[in-house]
Amino acid sequence: MKAYRDLREKYPSFRDRSEIPEVAIEVSLQPWRAFQPDGVILFSDIVTPLPGLGIDMDIAEGKGPIIHSPIRTQAQIDSLHDLEPEAALPFIKPILQALRQEVGDKSTVLGFVGAPWTLAAYAVEGKGSKTYSIIKNLAFSDPAILHQLLTKLADAIAVYARYQIDCGAQVVQMFDSWAGQLSPQDYDTFARPYQQRVFEQVKQTHPDTPLILLVSGSAGVLERMAQSGADIVSVDWTVDMADARARLGKHVKVQGNLDPGVLYGSKEFIRDRIYDTVRKAGNWGHILNLGHGVLPDTPEENVAFFFETAKQLSTAALVS
Amino acid sequence: MKAYRDLREKYPSFRDRSEIPEVAIEVSLQPWRAFQPDGVILFSDIVTPLPGLGIDMDIAEGKGPIIHSPIRTQAQIDSLHDLEPEAALPFIKPILQALRQEVGDKSTVLGFVGAPWTLAAYAVEGKGSKTYSIIKNLAFSDPAILHQLLTKLADAIAVYARYQIDCGAQVVQMFDSWAGQLSPQDYDTFARPYQQRVFEQVKQTHPDTPLILLVSGSAGVLERMAQSGADIVSVDWTVDMADARARLGKHVKVQGNLDPGVLYGSKEFIRDRIYDTVRKAGNWGHILNLGHGVLPDTPEENVAFFFETAKQLSTAALVS
Repeated sequence: MKAYRDLREKYPSFRDRSEIPEVAIEVSLQPWRAFQPDGVILFSDIVTPLPGLGIDMDIAEGKGPIIHSPIRTQAQIDSLHDLEPEAALPFIKPILQALRQEVGDKSTVLGFVGAPWTLAAYAVEGKGSKTYSIIKNLAFSDPAILHQLLTKLADAIAVYARYQIDCGAQVVQMFDSWAGQLSPQDYDTFARPYQQRVFEQVKQTHPDTPLILLVSGSAGVLERMAQSGADIVSVDWTVDMADARARLGKHVKVQGNLDPGVLYGSKEFIRDRIYDTVRKAGNWGHILNLGHGVLPDTPEENVAFFFETAKQLSTAALVS
Repeated sequence: MKAYRDLREKYPSFRDRSEIPEVAIEVSLQPWRAFQPDGVILFSDIVTPLPGLGIDMDIAEGKGPIIHSPIRTQAQIDSLHDLEPEAALPFIKPILQALRQEVGDKSTVLGFVGAPWTLAAYAVEGKGSKTYSIIKNLAFSDPAILHQLLTKLADAIAVYARYQIDCGAQVVQMFDSWAGQLSPQDYDTFARPYQQRVFEQVKQTHPDTPLILLVSGSAGVLERMAQSGADIVSVDWTVDMADARARLGKHVKVQGNLDPGVLYGSKEFIRDRIYDTVRKAGNWGHILNLGHGVLPDTPEENVAFFFETAKQLSTAALVS
């Protein structure tokens, strides 16, 4: 959105934009005001809580998070401390409270957190990676150390997710962005048990808050995502929604799965793709959205058309 | 390999290393001499034939191919010319002939080509991409132009693959590296028909040469890969080999699917993973290999152990 790009010029630091409450509130609300979606998501990053555990980080514009002292030794893991969200993340409460107040009953406020494997990947690699060679080296040559780090991260993430709910989040999405780079058997060893650990701890105190799990490139592990304890599994566009629905089992709802590139097409093309996805998702619950952020040069009117079409569909479904 | 890194210092340009026959032969043979694998692959790049069609390119060290004038208009597509491989790629024949002569009956010489969608992605984007937003914009807003480009590329790739076989390649692998970024229905529109066009043209003149298809991140489209006309489907490590085998159908053989990160583990760990993959691939034909290149800092002795273990397995299978 142009409004966001303008604001970014005024606040060039991502951490400022996400940690100064009035700025983060404004950014969170920009798409809501423009398109009136059914959900508003906290403007933040999955690495936001890391400094609260003792892992210093910065978010470089266009490059993503940078961890200046990557976590790779027993001593570093021992030195991590518990997350005290009120003290470490004082901006979260005013942001979420303001969002709830602003959108009222018209939309749902979503919080979000990173999953243990993905946060461990950032902490160990020190930045994003194409191959995840450093964390895989640790995983396959010294797994005991990594399991300690994953356990500490899971407990901190659970505390953070509960705190977001206490502050006003009505749904929490957990991003295990890089878990799709694991083989299914390694996903079962290093990713899923820690997703479960987070979800179980959150459900203990907040049993009614829906929890969403997103993994990028998840086509090989969809069945396993459905066994994580998530209520809703996000499905990206690299898998056919009908196949995904059949593989997941009916105890979970789905989210997704439009290719954001679809918004480059004509209105008729966009509508056909929306109808196709909704039809394939069936009647077991579906949060329709793009499988990724809006791509550069997407016409804003096409984004608006996406929301209009989706909302007409909801109404039609309610009436039928 | 250290031997390769030393040679890279002497020939810092990738195009020199892959287009000066004696250098390309040396690089191709380095791993063969060190590890005695069952196959030797031509050292080259999928974009190597593009200048022969009139698409100028360079390969920047560590950054991949750069197309200085990306192909995005009808006029640019009209100006592309047919590939005449003997004239445009004079280094291919001496390289493949030398490889055949060197390895004799001990190993198989593999040629390789890029697939139409992936070469179109480079040609249109001008370089690698995370989102493929420019080619998706073209695909969804002006598909007719893209189909013309894909047709021209398919015909040129078929000519090139046939030429590699005539020069000595005994198997040809086609890399559709970026087709895994398409939704299955777009894969059926923009990737698979052009894979088929290449494979059909090659089979017309060379019906007995096995053809391999590789797509990165292919877990969502495996069944579709099996319908491309390929004899062998490469399966990366993000899908369980037993699932892949069940989904592919028995008319195709498989290649893969070890995570290259496995080679960071102990010998016992590496052996267990090899056995697991081979067991799951079953008895319908399996080329065991890593799903990606060897990762940085992998101990060379672990690579050697991988080959030793694989070869003992082959012998055991032949005896049983």
